[in-house]
Amino acid sequence: MYSERISLILSKAQAKEGDRIRLETERGTFEGILMPRPDTGNSNVIVIKRDDGYNVGVEFSDKCIVKKLGSRSGEFSFPKYEARGNRSLPGISMIYTGGTIGSKVDYVTGGVYMLTKPEELLYEVPEIYEMADLRIRNLMSIASEDMTYKEWASIAETVASELNDGSSGIVITHGTDTMHYTAAALSFMLKDLNATVAITGAQRSSDRGSSDAFVNLVRSFQVAAGSDIAEVGICMHAGSSDGKNYFIRGTKARKMHTSRRDAFKPVNSTPICTIDEGGKLEYISEYRHKEHGRGKVKAVTGFEPKVALIKTHPNSDPGIIEYYMGKGYRGIILEGTGLGHVPSSPSIKDLSWLSNVKRAVDAGIVVGVTSQCIYGRVNDKVYRNLRLLKEAGGIHCEDMMPEVAYVKLGFLLGNYKSEEARKMLAVNIAGEITERSVADFDLV
Amino acid sequence: MYSERISLILSKAQAKEGDRIRLETERGTFEGILMPRPDTGNSNVIVIKRDDGYNVGVEFSDKCIVKKLGSRSGEFSFPKYEARGNRSLPGISMIYTGGTIGSKVDYVTGGVYMLTKPEELLYEVPEIYEMADLRIRNLMSIASEDMTYKEWASIAETVASELNDGSSGIVITHGTDTMHYTAAALSFMLKDLNATVAITGAQRSSDRGSSDAFVNLVRSFQVAAGSDIAEVGICMHAGSSDGKNYFIRGTKARKMHTSRRDAFKPVNSTPICTIDEGGKLEYISEYRHKEHGRGKVKAVTGFEPKVALIKTHPNSDPGIIEYYMGKGYRGIILEGTGLGHVPSSPSIKDLSWLSNVKRAVDAGIVVGVTSQCIYGRVNDKVYRNLRLLKEAGGIHCEDMMPEVAYVKLGFLLGNYKSEEARKMLAVNIAGEITERSVADFDLV
Repeated sequence: MYSERISLILSKAQAKEGDRIRLETERGTFEGILMPRPDTGNSNVIVIKRDDGYNVGVEFSDKCIVKKLGSRSGEFSFPKYEARGNRSLPGISMIYTGGTIGSKVDYVTGGVYMLTKPEELLYEVPEIYEMADLRIRNLMSIASEDMTYKEWASIAETVASELNDGSSGIVITHGTDTMHYTAAALSFMLKDLNATVAITGAQRSSDRGSSDAFVNLVRSFQVAAGSDIAEVGICMHAGSSDGKNYFIRGTKARKMHTSRRDAFKPVNSTPICTIDEGGKLEYISEYRHKEHGRGKVKAVTGFEPKVALIKTHPNSDPGIIEYYMGKGYRGIILEGTGLGHVPSSPSIKDLSWLSNVKRAVDAGIVVGVTSQCIYGRVNDKVYRNLRLLKEAGGIHCEDMMPEVAYVKLGFLLGNYKSEEARKMLAVNIAGEITERSVADFDLV
Repeated sequence: MYSERISLILSKAQAKEGDRIRLETERGTFEGILMPRPDTGNSNVIVIKRDDGYNVGVEFSDKCIVKKLGSRSGEFSFPKYEARGNRSLPGISMIYTGGTIGSKVDYVTGGVYMLTKPEELLYEVPEIYEMADLRIRNLMSIASEDMTYKEWASIAETVASELNDGSSGIVITHGTDTMHYTAAALSFMLKDLNATVAITGAQRSSDRGSSDAFVNLVRSFQVAAGSDIAEVGICMHAGSSDGKNYFIRGTKARKMHTSRRDAFKPVNSTPICTIDEGGKLEYISEYRHKEHGRGKVKAVTGFEPKVALIKTHPNSDPGIIEYYMGKGYRGIILEGTGLGHVPSSPSIKDLSWLSNVKRAVDAGIVVGVTSQCIYGRVNDKVYRNLRLLKEAGGIHCEDMMPEVAYVKLGFLLGNYKSEEARKMLAVNIAGEITERSVADFDLV
């Protein structure tokens, strides 16, 4: 409910929720549909839905002028969730896991709380009911930094059961922090996938005026219901100024900014497609197409938690490898520098990583080598230290990101013997390794 | 020396080293100054220096046509290094440390070897002798992945002694892998710096046709000799297609690609300036200006090696903190996700980081919190888990990159007591923390 003061102003202007209004304030003029005020939060903010789909919360002051521009015909009411059972639309399952997209800000304390019901998310985007025969699975409600391999397995199993139960596409709402880890995990875990699995979220909680939640949701449904892509991907803003979303392959996406809407970037690849304001898909990359008559999808959810991701850097302590050996770890992904170097540091003998890598490999641990540069590809040939690392048994992971190599090795060791995992680590299985591209190579 | 076959063709065309020639090949036409062939490498490659400053190595075949376009007047000879003592030019010291810029490829084995003398680097860029009264310090010859805090201290001391001995600017040649770690270290270690310290290198070794070494060298001398900047910065290509170099603040640069020439990007900032083909500097950001009459620069080289940089991720083991506590570590930088989250993972009790962070802080260890997003700023307020981390004693490091926070904490603990270091970690001392920028914040 709005504050008494705002309610009074609105009633003077004869503006009801759902009406089109204009707000003239000291900060500028805002135009759009007057939205109901969410239950929590600062009751002194007027929320309007702009034509670009964003809700804007405008702090009210005595200098604000409200003008009604038009009213909705008939009695306006915001849609409530209902399972419509409209079988003429594609059956899409929305799997709710929590995260910022499923949270509200308390404007007084600044704190963030989880929504109690995922249905609340759809409250502001009734157009989704025109796109899909919707089924909501309220799977969990956690912050994405708290996701573990157990939750990944649970999500993968739910995706498989929804698809095998008749859904033709999946939208997963998820916190953004570790969304790319989950996207990679699902990419490996979903075998014989024959549908689009769009993972989405929000960088600003769904009751903030500038929330990206609803644009992301709508476009995720558009790609899940309307594309030919049989892959897992992340569907988030392509730019900070809006206009388009990316659908980025699950093994090639990374959160590259703490707060921007366009935090997710494709790394060493282009997005599979973009989705524009009109819901039009533009395909940019090669992708795995849906196939008529393909069988059921299977969730292969084994995961070895005893895999470490270690960043090397000047002065870094190679003794950490012994620590993990002592704990019975079966895999290690090294984040080297540049083309995949680890320190051999001749000036301080204790800082040489090569002998410890060899010891780990000799003990049966699978050791993968990636680069903290993030962009580009590691190489086991150019420099002597790289060749020594290869001789010690390090497996150079091509253009896989460290995070993806970590998830892949956990997946491989959770489902295969070490020797098999070692062989598969640098072989592409879910789009995580791309062929060498010419673009990064210059003349001679 | 060129191969007999090439020598014959060249002599038929009456083309001598130093002459301007045109090479017509199946791969295209190349025009420029015929260069002498470096001692090592494939003798079947003709090297020409193009007008854009690049050397191009063109593999010779029987279909190549060589045309002489013009000859240098008089007897041409490539300059040899000599201390010219031309005091009318700015005195610039070049400190040589090794790395790809100081290496040659053996085209037969593909291996890379270090140059024996740094002077060889200047062999191809005689124009530097017109820019600077040059002094060369052959400090070390190591790959940058082998740099430790000991080498950082040695470089800092050499910079200080060169400047205090009359040089007015410094060019440091360095491997690219850990160049940004060294740049951060020097930024913290050089107190009262009153000159430009330009760190440069090459993504392709200096005898490869497409080496970026010489453009980077020339532009580093241009900024070191011609700018008003009293800071440490990295001077590398701004784009892959050449045209400009960036001079990026030492605490704000990061290697973001394994192989591209424009691998170094400014993070959470803009470059201090660009240097174009004509050597013109264009200033983009605020910077620390040189001051007339300022006193001597001091190298403060203390560094605490017992500082860890730990990347957290789903399933990551918080026991690693105990490992470092057992080893007597005094500082830890955490690479959290998003705004600086660490897992609290309610579904697997052993995976909660919060209690281990608290234990470390209670034991007197300084714990800093950064984000693996790289871009953006951490925050200790928005989410409950962030506030819990702050309550546990984690210090959120604003918009510092994890690598820079690591170097800074090592520097602080090497020169100050823990309590002082704790206070200084999130306070800007060398441009490593920038004020909040409006650009990342959207409406409401």
